[in-house]
Amino acid sequence: MERRISGRTASDGLAIGPATILHALDGASRSKGSIAEEHAVLATAVARAREAVAELIGQLAGDAAELIGFQLALLEDDALTETAYAQIERGVAADVAWRAAMAEEIAGYETADDEYFRARASDLADIRDRVLRHLFGLADDGQLLDGAIVVARDLAPSAFLGIDWSKGGGIVLGEGSPTSHVAMLARGRGVPMVVGLGHEWEELTGQLLVDGGRGVVVVDPGVEHVDAARAEGETLTRRKAEAVARQCEQALTRDGTAVAVLVNISGPADMTVLPAAACDGVGLARTEFLTANLLHDEEAQVSAYTDLMRWADGRPVTIRTLDAGGDKPIPGYTIDGESNPFLGLRGIRLSLRHADIFRIQLRALARAAALGPLKVMLPMVTNAAELDAARSHLRAVLAELADSNVAFAEPALGMMVEVPAAALAAQNFAADFFSIGTNDLTQYATAASRDGAEVADYADVLHPGVLAMIAHVVRAGRVRGVEVSVCGDAAGDVRAIRALLEAGVRALSVSPGLLPLVKAAIRELDLVGIAEGA
Amino acid sequence: MERRISGRTASDGLAIGPATILHALDGASRSKGSIAEEHAVLATAVARAREAVAELIGQLAGDAAELIGFQLALLEDDALTETAYAQIERGVAADVAWRAAMAEEIAGYETADDEYFRARASDLADIRDRVLRHLFGLADDGQLLDGAIVVARDLAPSAFLGIDWSKGGGIVLGEGSPTSHVAMLARGRGVPMVVGLGHEWEELTGQLLVDGGRGVVVVDPGVEHVDAARAEGETLTRRKAEAVARQCEQALTRDGTAVAVLVNISGPADMTVLPAAACDGVGLARTEFLTANLLHDEEAQVSAYTDLMRWADGRPVTIRTLDAGGDKPIPGYTIDGESNPFLGLRGIRLSLRHADIFRIQLRALARAAALGPLKVMLPMVTNAAELDAARSHLRAVLAELADSNVAFAEPALGMMVEVPAAALAAQNFAADFFSIGTNDLTQYATAASRDGAEVADYADVLHPGVLAMIAHVVRAGRVRGVEVSVCGDAAGDVRAIRALLEAGVRALSVSPGLLPLVKAAIRELDLVGIAEGA
Repeated sequence: MERRISGRTASDGLAIGPATILHALDGASRSKGSIAEEHAVLATAVARAREAVAELIGQLAGDAAELIGFQLALLEDDALTETAYAQIERGVAADVAWRAAMAEEIAGYETADDEYFRARASDLADIRDRVLRHLFGLADDGQLLDGAIVVARDLAPSAFLGIDWSKGGGIVLGEGSPTSHVAMLARGRGVPMVVGLGHEWEELTGQLLVDGGRGVVVVDPGVEHVDAARAEGETLTRRKAEAVARQCEQALTRDGTAVAVLVNISGPADMTVLPAAACDGVGLARTEFLTANLLHDEEAQVSAYTDLMRWADGRPVTIRTLDAGGDKPIPGYTIDGESNPFLGLRGIRLSLRHADIFRIQLRALARAAALGPLKVMLPMVTNAAELDAARSHLRAVLAELADSNVAFAEPALGMMVEVPAAALAAQNFAADFFSIGTNDLTQYATAASRDGAEVADYADVLHPGVLAMIAHVVRAGRVRGVEVSVCGDAAGDVRAIRALLEAGVRALSVSPGLLPLVKAAIRELDLVGIAEGA
Repeated sequence: MERRISGRTASDGLAIGPATILHALDGASRSKGSIAEEHAVLATAVARAREAVAELIGQLAGDAAELIGFQLALLEDDALTETAYAQIERGVAADVAWRAAMAEEIAGYETADDEYFRARASDLADIRDRVLRHLFGLADDGQLLDGAIVVARDLAPSAFLGIDWSKGGGIVLGEGSPTSHVAMLARGRGVPMVVGLGHEWEELTGQLLVDGGRGVVVVDPGVEHVDAARAEGETLTRRKAEAVARQCEQALTRDGTAVAVLVNISGPADMTVLPAAACDGVGLARTEFLTANLLHDEEAQVSAYTDLMRWADGRPVTIRTLDAGGDKPIPGYTIDGESNPFLGLRGIRLSLRHADIFRIQLRALARAAALGPLKVMLPMVTNAAELDAARSHLRAVLAELADSNVAFAEPALGMMVEVPAAALAAQNFAADFFSIGTNDLTQYATAASRDGAEVADYADVLHPGVLAMIAHVVRAGRVRGVEVSVCGDAAGDVRAIRALLEAGVRALSVSPGLLPLVKAAIRELDLVGIAEGA
């Protein structure tokens, strides 16, 4: 008997396969050795887990690498293992000691006031299980059948990344949120995913049909349902392959309107996903990799920006200055204890308060600009005065460089438009270009936090008020004669692209993995007869 | 030698007087009695402090009473005194025991993660000093000279309220913020105030000139400066008296444009500040007094709304449904642990999740509507669907009432416009009226938290993007044929009124204490030749 269970859409697409419940390793047990042996066994397991994570990072791009980087940092921190070693000294078995020590850590994260830290509890559980698998001599992956539907309460990002999704498969979670890291990864890889199923997830067995787009799971689907879904799935797969085949062609709508498609780059790995020829340039390069050390290291920054310029090979490269604050703290740089960090000191607000650090980045950017068309983009600009202040810093830096022997050039200076008041006053900003950050713009415009699962439904880029802001920025760009692009998630969401083009947008910057499908979606649209920017 | 020190504007106006540094009571000492005596002495001092605070509340209106209410609640909590009594039992003097117990409490608040709780540390310090003054037999006030300039690191709300400002005076703080509670009180009372002076506050002596509007303190001002300031001060005083004399006259601009001026009511005390004849109705009655108990008590609500209708005596009364969440938690009703509560579940979002409680309030409002023109206003509306859902609840409630014997009437159903996306899509909302909440609208539009002192300068209602949103709502109101008013702080800020009228606003709702000056400010404006709503 076919049975339907409703959850929430986390990643589009269809998958059919056997339910495979991912249990924690709670049932396993092993025989204990001497204190010295147990100590060595744990040390080896932790070291192997660390190597496996480090290797994983090497294979991953951008956001994915960043997420797992958190786990690597934890595994390299002796504080995490100290408690376990102390227990082993008291005669406890390595696996029991490790489990107890991690339970304590996880509880600390789970009861944190801060939603961000609570969300990190799943990373810790993931580390726990990785080390346990090594302790028990198991392989790093869960030995899933091809096309299996992973069923779990929640899923850690590295568990997702450890599974081979090339043969299909899907994800069904009892808890979870569409805004979680693992949901983001699933969308990037095109793995169908439904979250928030409730306690029923524990009883899922047999054949499952995951309809990600509709947020529905069908248990023991009937033949007709399976056939229809298979056909739909095959169409999707064929469409993806076709899209990749044409990824280096220009994106034109049916009526012949050209849409520039650029890429968002979060780290070196993102440059390996696509040939640069597939994109019209880099629409957003994030520089949040500038951790406390690198903030002061001009040469290291020049080197990183140079890599990007070489990859882009003459195409325009837009690099965003440090966008710290909000949900991206940097110890000693950002402010602790803000009651609403997304409404606090972030982006350019912080850069202008740390002018010395800001100028180091501007110097490095001006030096890299000698290699090609580099554009500097300021995040979170609210007032025209901030842009003017940033330009003064840039001029001062250019004057310094002119007195030195190093090569440099003046980059274009533009701004992210992500603050609603700035969007509606864009015509007042002397920016060389505008790039609309739809994630933050939507969060502020709808007063719904990006990381609050409870308000996720409110943060809708298709809200007519948000689209009106986007259309206003496009008009302001025309009035000022400067380019306008969109670099938020909406640019890579095929459901939102039509609305963006209707609002007058003609340049989209997306994750490299999404570019082929975005170009394909553009090719299917017809803009004839649309009252653009209405 | 005249010397100028710059700080930040917290409250407009000019004051000249002797610097009076408010020291803590750290230097004082007293002789110790027996354990029983010390116990009794502390109990008496706490009881007197409690009485003094209770009396103060009786004299205060609205926000001020609410702020001090927190202190009363603390003084009535035995947990606060327990630690001190335990120390007295061990032979410690009452003042020493009290100081130590309070130091512990204050440290707890000062190190809280939450900015709101950190801000409450000054309330605790205030309670500590109140009780100490009673222990030392001092009067409740600081025995300030008339017109003294109070100089301090920070100032507790009750210290402000304990001072007689009718003879002039001003405030200069080393720390503090323009958005603090005490700054709000100073503006309400018209006491000039400059904050954020830095460590120089400790060395201020002699004659001081406080220029609140310019955010400047002049030490030992020259005769010319003093004369000019005195003249300016006298003009201000005369203007206030004139404004009060004409408070019951209609507000017309020089060119004869009528502007409705309504009042914001936060509690019963606000109804004693002005005769109802001075206002054109109640533009915003807050119902946050509906604590956990009252949420379920329809009769108590009917009674409270009835008092308001009787006071308004036939004038329109706009009552806002419960606006909990954000910085206004209600245990068991709002969500704990949101990472950005201002971008979380608040206002109508919560009401629609607690439909039973929402319907109780709608029933009580419909019953009070039998007494006159009552308007129901929904806070934080983001989507048209929320307004439609609220109207369905109202219709269901009206149908229930029609089947009962109680008197009722259908109230108008309108919305606060405070979410930027809703402002720009106002034409899509089937509201019976719009009331623009400038505080929240500005906070979201500029991505700058209302309670974050670090970003206070960003939250500017005069940002052209914010004014564009306001103008859009005015146009949407005309298209839909419904009233548009402004009920945020900007309506009572004489610097913002011109911009609001230029944006097309013709109804302002302000704190009762500000109404006379707001009417006077309107009378000085000339709107001829203004491209309204441009």
